[in-house]
Amino acid sequence: MSLIHDADAVFDPNADRLREECGVFGIFGHEDAAALTALGLHALQHRGQEATGIVSFDGQRFHTERQLGLVGDAFSDASVIEKLKGKQAIGHVRYSTTGETILRNVQPLFSELHGGGFAVAHNGNLTNGLTLRRNLVRDGAIYQSTSDTEVLLHLVARSRKPKFIERFIDALRQIEGAYAFVGITNKKLVGARDPLGIRPLVLGDLNGCPILTSETCALDIIGAKFVREIENGEVVVISEQGIESHKPFPPVAERPCIFEYIYFARPDSIVKGRSIYERRKAMGAQLALEAPTEADVIVPVPDSGVPAALGYAQASGIPFELGIIRNHYVGRTFIEPTQKVRELGVRLKHSANRSVVEGKRIVLVDDSIVRGTTSLKIVKMMREAGAREVHFRISSPPITHPDYYGIDTPDQAKLLAATHSLEEMRQFVGADSLAFISVDGLYKAMGHERRDPTRPQFTDHCFTGDYPTSLTDVVGESAKQQMSLLAEAG
Amino acid sequence: MSLIHDADAVFDPNADRLREECGVFGIFGHEDAAALTALGLHALQHRGQEATGIVSFDGQRFHTERQLGLVGDAFSDASVIEKLKGKQAIGHVRYSTTGETILRNVQPLFSELHGGGFAVAHNGNLTNGLTLRRNLVRDGAIYQSTSDTEVLLHLVARSRKPKFIERFIDALRQIEGAYAFVGITNKKLVGARDPLGIRPLVLGDLNGCPILTSETCALDIIGAKFVREIENGEVVVISEQGIESHKPFPPVAERPCIFEYIYFARPDSIVKGRSIYERRKAMGAQLALEAPTEADVIVPVPDSGVPAALGYAQASGIPFELGIIRNHYVGRTFIEPTQKVRELGVRLKHSANRSVVEGKRIVLVDDSIVRGTTSLKIVKMMREAGAREVHFRISSPPITHPDYYGIDTPDQAKLLAATHSLEEMRQFVGADSLAFISVDGLYKAMGHERRDPTRPQFTDHCFTGDYPTSLTDVVGESAKQQMSLLAEAG
Amino acid sequence: MSLIHDADAVFDPNADRLREECGVFGIFGHEDAAALTALGLHALQHRGQEATGIVSFDGQRFHTERQLGLVGDAFSDASVIEKLKGKQAIGHVRYSTTGETILRNVQPLFSELHGGGFAVAHNGNLTNGLTLRRNLVRDGAIYQSTSDTEVLLHLVARSRKPKFIERFIDALRQIEGAYAFVGITNKKLVGARDPLGIRPLVLGDLNGCPILTSETCALDIIGAKFVREIENGEVVVISEQGIESHKPFPPVAERPCIFEYIYFARPDSIVKGRSIYERRKAMGAQLALEAPTEADVIVPVPDSGVPAALGYAQASGIPFELGIIRNHYVGRTFIEPTQKVRELGVRLKHSANRSVVEGKRIVLVDDSIVRGTTSLKIVKMMREAGAREVHFRISSPPITHPDYYGIDTPDQAKLLAATHSLEEMRQFVGADSLAFISVDGLYKAMGHERRDPTRPQFTDHCFTGDYPTSLTDVVGESAKQQMSLLAEAG
Amino acid sequence: MSLIHDADAVFDPNADRLREECGVFGIFGHEDAAALTALGLHALQHRGQEATGIVSFDGQRFHTERQLGLVGDAFSDASVIEKLKGKQAIGHVRYSTTGETILRNVQPLFSELHGGGFAVAHNGNLTNGLTLRRNLVRDGAIYQSTSDTEVLLHLVARSRKPKFIERFIDALRQIEGAYAFVGITNKKLVGARDPLGIRPLVLGDLNGCPILTSETCALDIIGAKFVREIENGEVVVISEQGIESHKPFPPVAERPCIFEYIYFARPDSIVKGRSIYERRKAMGAQLALEAPTEADVIVPVPDSGVPAALGYAQASGIPFELGIIRNHYVGRTFIEPTQKVRELGVRLKHSANRSVVEGKRIVLVDDSIVRGTTSLKIVKMMREAGAREVHFRISSPPITHPDYYGIDTPDQAKLLAATHSLEEMRQFVGADSLAFISVDGLYKAMGHERRDPTRPQFTDHCFTGDYPTSLTDVVGESAKQQMSLLAEAG
Repeated sequence: MSLIHDADAVFDPNADRLREECGVFGIFGHEDAAALTALGLHALQHRGQEATGIVSFDGQRFHTERQLGLVGDAFSDASVIEKLKGKQAIGHVRYSTTGETILRNVQPLFSELHGGGFAVAHNGNLTNGLTLRRNLVRDGAIYQSTSDTEVLLHLVARSRKPKFIERFIDALRQIEGAYAFVGITNKKLVGARDPLGIRPLVLGDLNGCPILTSETCALDIIGAKFVREIENGEVVVISEQGIESHKPFPPVAERPCIFEYIYFARPDSIVKGRSIYERRKAMGAQLALEAPTEADVIVPVPDSGVPAALGYAQASGIPFELGIIRNHYVGRTFIEPTQKVRELGVRLKHSANRSVVEGKRIVLVDDSIVRGTTSLKIVKMMREAGAREVHFRISSPPITHPDYYGIDTPDQAKLLAATHSLEEMRQFVGADSLAFISVDGLYKAMGHERRDPTRPQFTDHCFTGDYPTSLTDVVGESAKQQMSLLAEAG
Repeated sequence: MSLIHDADAVFDPNADRLREECGVFGIFGHEDAAALTALGLHALQHRGQEATGIVSFDGQRFHTERQLGLVGDAFSDASVIEKLKGKQAIGHVRYSTTGETILRNVQPLFSELHGGGFAVAHNGNLTNGLTLRRNLVRDGAIYQSTSDTEVLLHLVARSRKPKFIERFIDALRQIEGAYAFVGITNKKLVGARDPLGIRPLVLGDLNGCPILTSETCALDIIGAKFVREIENGEVVVISEQGIESHKPFPPVAERPCIFEYIYFARPDSIVKGRSIYERRKAMGAQLALEAPTEADVIVPVPDSGVPAALGYAQASGIPFELGIIRNHYVGRTFIEPTQKVRELGVRLKHSANRSVVEGKRIVLVDDSIVRGTTSLKIVKMMREAGAREVHFRISSPPITHPDYYGIDTPDQAKLLAATHSLEEMRQFVGADSLAFISVDGLYKAMGHERRDPTRPQFTDHCFTGDYPTSLTDVVGESAKQQMSLLAEAG
Repeated sequence: MSLIHDADAVFDPNADRLREECGVFGIFGHEDAAALTALGLHALQHRGQEATGIVSFDGQRFHTERQLGLVGDAFSDASVIEKLKGKQAIGHVRYSTTGETILRNVQPLFSELHGGGFAVAHNGNLTNGLTLRRNLVRDGAIYQSTSDTEVLLHLVARSRKPKFIERFIDALRQIEGAYAFVGITNKKLVGARDPLGIRPLVLGDLNGCPILTSETCALDIIGAKFVREIENGEVVVISEQGIESHKPFPPVAERPCIFEYIYFARPDSIVKGRSIYERRKAMGAQLALEAPTEADVIVPVPDSGVPAALGYAQASGIPFELGIIRNHYVGRTFIEPTQKVRELGVRLKHSANRSVVEGKRIVLVDDSIVRGTTSLKIVKMMREAGAREVHFRISSPPITHPDYYGIDTPDQAKLLAATHSLEEMRQFVGADSLAFISVDGLYKAMGHERRDPTRPQFTDHCFTGDYPTSLTDVVGESAKQQMSLLAEAG
Repeated sequence: MSLIHDADAVFDPNADRLREECGVFGIFGHEDAAALTALGLHALQHRGQEATGIVSFDGQRFHTERQLGLVGDAFSDASVIEKLKGKQAIGHVRYSTTGETILRNVQPLFSELHGGGFAVAHNGNLTNGLTLRRNLVRDGAIYQSTSDTEVLLHLVARSRKPKFIERFIDALRQIEGAYAFVGITNKKLVGARDPLGIRPLVLGDLNGCPILTSETCALDIIGAKFVREIENGEVVVISEQGIESHKPFPPVAERPCIFEYIYFARPDSIVKGRSIYERRKAMGAQLALEAPTEADVIVPVPDSGVPAALGYAQASGIPFELGIIRNHYVGRTFIEPTQKVRELGVRLKHSANRSVVEGKRIVLVDDSIVRGTTSLKIVKMMREAGAREVHFRISSPPITHPDYYGIDTPDQAKLLAATHSLEEMRQFVGADSLAFISVDGLYKAMGHERRDPTRPQFTDHCFTGDYPTSLTDVVGESAKQQMSLLAEAG
């Protein structure tokens, strides 16, 4: 047992990346609702690989299938899709941020409420979820999961408003934090985005059938048209009568999470009219402007660093080369060899392309440094492959603060930039030079002149410490100590 | 797909038996609590083979493992038992009576309530479960299962009484029907038996550690001593302070379910000081008295008819012989052959022992007739093996009414005795003669002079239509239509 | 890992039984050949539970499916049966005697020979298999299994005779030991029984389609007629031209293995015109005659001791009672509890029926004692249940010699009767008295006046040391040291 | 069932690629032999993903583990590696070219020969394998697999030479075709490369332990040094006495398969002193020279077209952009949607990056066209994403002839270039222009002046029809008709 480890433990540039929390998808009125939801979730797989689920409604009954693992595994069997009958469906992919990854936590969550069933899927994290949960339990509520999302179900169930949509809004008014919700009832598909629009949600259309989903790439995979982004603080209700929009919150300017642009969204997704790929290339180009260097080749850390590296290469005129080769066949786990083998420095997921690197001055481009543990291995790998100089360029600013809105960040003490100066970081990773894009440079790459400190255009607390909402659960006590006493084995 | 069927569909004397609902086990203060619970559940396996679960508490955390299938499969892996840490544990085996057999319905159910976690396992059925559920949902409760048992969790969660045990009793006072509950909190092991004692519950002791379980055979397997039966309407609370007994209901005479004696309990279990095996032999002997016949051999329908057949044989002096051989290696499913093969009348589980039967006048003894579909196949098998005469003797009275207390009976219209006279039944099964024990004869075998019609000593509605409690859910509407809209695939 | 054990290790009266080696089945000319073979194998499941396989031939191609585990699991899926196309098929159930239980050893074995494919299934054991194997390897043969049966394939492949049947007989003439073979080629179903007829093989008929199988119970399950036993030393060849019989060996009197009667065959199987059940009852009756005792009840060790116990009870007039209850739900493995729990003497498969035993003088009847380890546990269990006296009666003579013909016996040093006098055995098992049937008594129960020492009617070396064939492999060296160097994990 | 398909069926640029056959790895004298072999095989995973196996020898016994699926799944469990004891081991990854992909075909194949065990793994294909097989079967050989590799085992087994190495060479002299073999006996690690060196084999060294493997990337992953390539026609024998080299064939110039350079080898592998990545970039550059075009962006077909596209971009000065985004999370199978959904043109593995493509003249670079079915889908995807012009450039010459040396090519009739002119191919794929590198251009990129038609430097029959060996099996009859009659289900 002790010899088996996650491949990441041996060597993986992705081992030190932030994890996105979730992706959501919902469709209304299509006879292949579940199949299309599965395809949409597949396109959103980069947003969460731990678990996935679909709930459909066939006019009479709700059907649900939830699985640990990938969409392509959970929904590869036609018999599974066939059981998910009905013309409306919602689905979810998940990388857990709160709640253990056990089946009863896998979304969409479902409950039969007075008046009928309600299923909901959530991307984001509630910053007062534990506080609300404690109050509800004190009031006799029984929880079926340890997920913060279940709070929403209870709040809807307990609302005394007469109509479902009023009860839904009643519940939304009690929660804080970041969310994109999609839900279905026996009549409606609903969606909601938090007041600041921290987490994304877009509206699409497939031959007249409305779709709500996290990214446009989930529309593209099934050939659906992009209609518009759901606005921050907007609640949409889709029924046979069409699409209604509600604005239950006081109007404020949106502050979408900037990490979607840097990091999470798929390169081919379009946000605010421009592709993520273009934004990332612009970040690389801006980085070349802010932190130029003499070098022979630009080497991306695959796959996350590729667009920024291309932008840097094009801006600097230095050739772009694949100096690191990725092995596409890595499973989840692998043998940890004996001590003797471990000293060999086995690289399961990547290897140096020596012919590109040897004797060269290289600019290594990545999109972020979190703990720094992987960065130092990559730099070492480049040096062992004969790189003469290694200049490390990062297309996001230093990450100094943890996230509470649905991104899984390590404790602040483990964030390299929270505890090291730039020079200390350079020494830690072992590069000849190290540079990060500036915060204003990042905003510039995003099309703004600079960050507006009085009304920042993005949620960017990881770089600035400027949290855009209250953090009810965090204040006073550690969230983790509050979690369920139950450890479920299966 | 359509070619695979339950073996029972092909031919199985047990296919037409009633199904017991559940067995429960709980132990307090033993360092091997989970292992002992698994062993106890194994001894109770005859009470339910569809699913099993254990919840333990280790002083800090609750641990739970729930699985579809047999105890010996679910808990065969030592690593599973090791995860179920702690000195108190409860467990459950289940044949579902309400709620689909899906994982989230498998007991024990657990919830964290205000004040700490509570896990509960239930043998029986609530006759007002759906009515209570509807009221609770109307009041904002969210259900995690379709099991009627979850009602108890919600009622405890919502009780405003200050102490746990008061809240538990508060909940019990609101429910009707048949139950034996065992539960654990972070301090206590609790047990409760319904006011009439319809379902069984006994107290045992293993070197000072109290045990609550459905039958004495679960004590025997681990060498525990039998202490006493929990009384009808009794609530016991076991803690480090010892065992407290509560009597929250008005005192009434007990009316245990007579089917436990005829049918469900294991032959080696002891109830009211006499072994089930002895009771069943007495039923056979009484039957020989009431319905004697000239014959050459007594043949039991294995395995359920064996004790009564021995009793009949000893009382009548006719030799007891194994005229039917059972194949012990049948899995759950088997091939349904093509039409051509089907006509061969394949017998997967049993076969005639021709040398015993051929040319003989046989008395075939079974413990019950439900639909009669299997009985006619057995009689046919005996005739095909050359039996000259087949006299069918049944050690329980005709079943004319369905059960609502935790036994899975078919609709009344499908009960052979509900729609056929004795002579019609004889013709249906194809026997030369057919006789059932009388109701008074059954009571006599149980040690009473006769059934006391004013205060019947047993719950015996299946034979008499005399239901001992109100049937709130049944009155007015079909229970099945009220069930959850959710069909969970996984 | 180390906490998981076979249930038998904890407590199981069957743990100390001899293991049958195999059962075979073949059918010619039926469109449901594979389905019928699966059913026949199911009826033979008592002859081997470790693995099973079927090979069919559809006129063009051979199809094969081999699995570890039970027939009802391996062939429960209709899609598996559908792949086994064709009108002729053979099958096998196996308890391994030589060769590890790994998939490549599971029979039927198949090979394409010059002239076409040949598949064969074997019940028995070759006493010169290793010697032949060594010679063949020296001559360039490559083995696909560690099974002794493969020798036959190589001998057929290398025979220079022109016709298949000549090559088959050529091969048979080179092997020694015990065998019942069934095989198929692209034209024929063949069967062969060793010169002494040690292992059984019968011919049946289903609507004109010939069947070869180990026991008549495999005919009964599909409604096929019994035609006759294949004679000792007979080779049958079934083709569209009908059934040919060959007698390639010098004629000798048959000596079937007496263990089939005592032990292996199913009670409802018919051998030499009388049922096994009757033979076993006769052994019990003879035992009552040879070793009577004063007692209150006769208690069988289930299930193997039941017929002899009934015979003993009827002959002695002492009542037959189920003093031991069997749990039918035991899986293969179970938790071995901690030391503390182990001391409780957990009984997973059987329990005492105290009401039958307590205060009584009992006669415990079983069909054999091998190592004696289980017998002592049963006697102890009876005493703990309150038996006043325990008289142990065994319906076979003392087992003093190991088998080499397909029965898995422990080393001679572990056979209780090989190293203990009767009185020492009585002390070992802890009984008040102990008696075995005499060898002549056994022959008497089988319908002979006595054992004919000059020409014994049965193969009975386990009781007498009189091995009926030469033991080429045994002489000179330990068989086990000769086995393959290859340990295959999967 | 019929609704489930390989994801490739829906849409996958890789669906139309050639499949490499196999990769091999062997190590001698290292205490972590099996773990290192697993790691080496992982690095060779691109050479075969269908099955994998390892055989080790511990001084006493051979151990083997063979599995369908990926190395990272088969050997992720430490307990599996622990069973593969010993200091020498060989391993194999496989994409089947002959023989069904069933477990008994998975390599290394093992057999116990007279004199001891021998295990062998093979990359390549024998062009007289079926002919030899037929002769061996006629001579009484029994095959354990349908793999052509087993011929070698039989030839070694039947050789009458006294020493193992003589018998091995005796066998090699009888076979024709392409091969790199690695094998172990109880004393030696052996390797052999076919007389022309069609398939690759290199010698490495890890702290004094010799390694034989297909590519240098399998040395890099464990930090082993590259020593030299095994020469064409060379047989190496590694033992405790060191490394011996044999040259049993008449000396001829080598002709390695050019597809290793274009297509199969990993970009970071080094062959003849230059990296594969550099060779592929040179092919792209040469293609830019031979077939220039005016365009706005160079778009690679990921991942195979990336190096050539980079070479083309650098040579042409046109920017390189990721116009196609790959989804890394595709499992093996996925839902085939209903007809309605199918018409949506779902793209599971790749999607257009519209922002790069829209309104642009693009040069699409791929490394080959086989059937052309995928190429037309990619061109269509680019046009749907708004590409104004699509110029398709292929970095290998047109494939007009099938392979018989271990590469899985479709029948000649299905090779697009075998049946279409260049203009017809352009129309078929729907490009505005289409160009392939010339054969001489390819040789130029490989560092030669041109192809030497009298003594071609490479095996290049797929482009030229010039097969370098006799094709014994092909002449006269279809290979497929010769294959085994046995279809094994499991």
